[in-house]
Amino acid sequence: MLVTPRAELDRLSGVVEQRIRDFLAAERIRWSRVNEQASSVIDAVAGLIDAGGKRLRPRFCLSGYLAAGGDQGGIAVVPAAAALELLHACALIHDDIMDEASSRRGRPTVHTRHMAEHQRRRWRGDPGRFGENVGILAGDLALVYADQFMAQVPADVGRMWGELRTELIIGQYMDVVSAAAPADGPELARWIAMVKSGSYTILRPLVVGCMVAGRPELAGVFTAYGTALGEAFQLRDDMLNAFGDPRVTGKPGGLDLEQRKMTLLLALAVQRDGRIAGMISSDPGGVRVILEESGAREELEKHIGLLVDEACDAIADAPLDEEWREELAAIAYEVAYRER
Amino acid sequence: MLVTPRAELDRLSGVVEQRIRDFLAAERIRWSRVNEQASSVIDAVAGLIDAGGKRLRPRFCLSGYLAAGGDQGGIAVVPAAAALELLHACALIHDDIMDEASSRRGRPTVHTRHMAEHQRRRWRGDPGRFGENVGILAGDLALVYADQFMAQVPADVGRMWGELRTELIIGQYMDVVSAAAPADGPELARWIAMVKSGSYTILRPLVVGCMVAGRPELAGVFTAYGTALGEAFQLRDDMLNAFGDPRVTGKPGGLDLEQRKMTLLLALAVQRDGRIAGMISSDPGGVRVILEESGAREELEKHIGLLVDEACDAIADAPLDEEWREELAAIAYEVAYRER
Repeated sequence: MLVTPRAELDRLSGVVEQRIRDFLAAERIRWSRVNEQASSVIDAVAGLIDAGGKRLRPRFCLSGYLAAGGDQGGIAVVPAAAALELLHACALIHDDIMDEASSRRGRPTVHTRHMAEHQRRRWRGDPGRFGENVGILAGDLALVYADQFMAQVPADVGRMWGELRTELIIGQYMDVVSAAAPADGPELARWIAMVKSGSYTILRPLVVGCMVAGRPELAGVFTAYGTALGEAFQLRDDMLNAFGDPRVTGKPGGLDLEQRKMTLLLALAVQRDGRIAGMISSDPGGVRVILEESGAREELEKHIGLLVDEACDAIADAPLDEEWREELAAIAYEVAYRER
Repeated sequence: MLVTPRAELDRLSGVVEQRIRDFLAAERIRWSRVNEQASSVIDAVAGLIDAGGKRLRPRFCLSGYLAAGGDQGGIAVVPAAAALELLHACALIHDDIMDEASSRRGRPTVHTRHMAEHQRRRWRGDPGRFGENVGILAGDLALVYADQFMAQVPADVGRMWGELRTELIIGQYMDVVSAAAPADGPELARWIAMVKSGSYTILRPLVVGCMVAGRPELAGVFTAYGTALGEAFQLRDDMLNAFGDPRVTGKPGGLDLEQRKMTLLLALAVQRDGRIAGMISSDPGGVRVILEESGAREELEKHIGLLVDEACDAIADAPLDEEWREELAAIAYEVAYRER
């Protein structure tokens, strides 16, 4: 085989990327003709896309499609993958408002950037309010654009698309509540991680991919792979948040701890060292130290390793192309051991 | 004819209402099984629906459908009308955050209610932030639910559905910008009114209705009717905001003036009395007085009358059922001369 799975994936990822950019550029032109200022909310979405990101969701969607034997032209899967990335743009823009985060993908967040514009131009009203309002609308727009892409997908993915989005929003809501309400124990944190990462980031994009390829019978295999890898992904996310270098991750460090969030990391750590439970709300800085000293961090690294094995086992005997089985295993390692 | 158009419209409106409530109730049950707290964000959407409202968008959609001769069973049009009301729920929930409005439909707004819950339960973090976060997510959820309903509509309304939502969001964005940036003159205010009311509230729902009925050739007639009536509707909205009784409207009075917004009302008034332009930002209370004393308010009442005539003229010779032509004229009067 002349073209490796990775090369195929990269090529199709490039097509998705271009499709999103072309769409946003066309929207920009169309709306600037109506009103010069109107395109600025489209630029907010485009700016986030331009800033890069891991593109995990479109890549998993394309992987599910290609691993299931979808044709390499990929005409049907491209809009589905684009929809997933635009949905993610909505989630990030709204999430950054909710978390009051100032940077994302190494750039100011949408609401921060527009707050600054308001200040710079000495506009009327409260700059913070203005920035958040633009962020709310930019997120809404990304959600609508996501949907316009998914409407182009011929396969019957409509029901799953509804479910995926509802699950994402309810997961976000539970995340907000669990940060506010007295710690509800580790089970809730695991559920939130399962919904937000396992499902939305990995499992459902893979299943959308295999459905577009006309092989819905692979949903079970991808569900097992995605559930295990999703937990590993979220655990790594939490680890990077707690211990990562903001210069590498492009996000401020330690935010979850400061916000006293019951993350998956803490949920699992509490089960290993009871002292942590009480410290989450009283001494967030101390939690980090305890995680290191008690050996919980090291243990959780091992847990990530086991989850990766579990993900690889799930696809070991699946009716997938041999090269794609290897590729999915490689992806699992990369996701679980990424540095940003 | 035994059943009057109004009775038909009321009956089908009841079906839409029930469909929305059944859907939200089913979602509530499904998600409470997963997690007890999860259903609370669904309740936020359901609470707004339960609180009533004019249901203008579903009613115009049903009217467009029935006037175009759509069958009275209306199976195809019900999900389209439900989608329009849920989209509106999203717009209201997000709008109330952006305007920092405390009441809607005579009840506390979603973010206000959840802010109060946070305070009552003495949860962690900032209550205002929590309330707004729940509002952002509840609005997102309503948008996704709207889309799930529209996905059930067999007619090819997909493209218009995308356009309608994008236009709404960009209209909202321009509204936010025009409140913040130095007054951009009356043209922008008219454009915003055209997009947000003419198009989103009246014209597009009517056109969706006639498309579902299989008569897209009526789009031109409904566009002319909807554009004129939309301006009348928005002007009435602004008048109620400036002069209405909050006990009747269920919304706080004078908010637009306080926020120094260039509303359609002010845009038209400025053209009639130059003194108003300078007062909008310096003396919002004085604007109300001047509107009365200069006779601008009275003149704008006449303008509403002319717009209603224009709307009625647009349908006078249209190939619609005679009884429905009369009904659409009656609706125009009701919308233009409503008290809340």
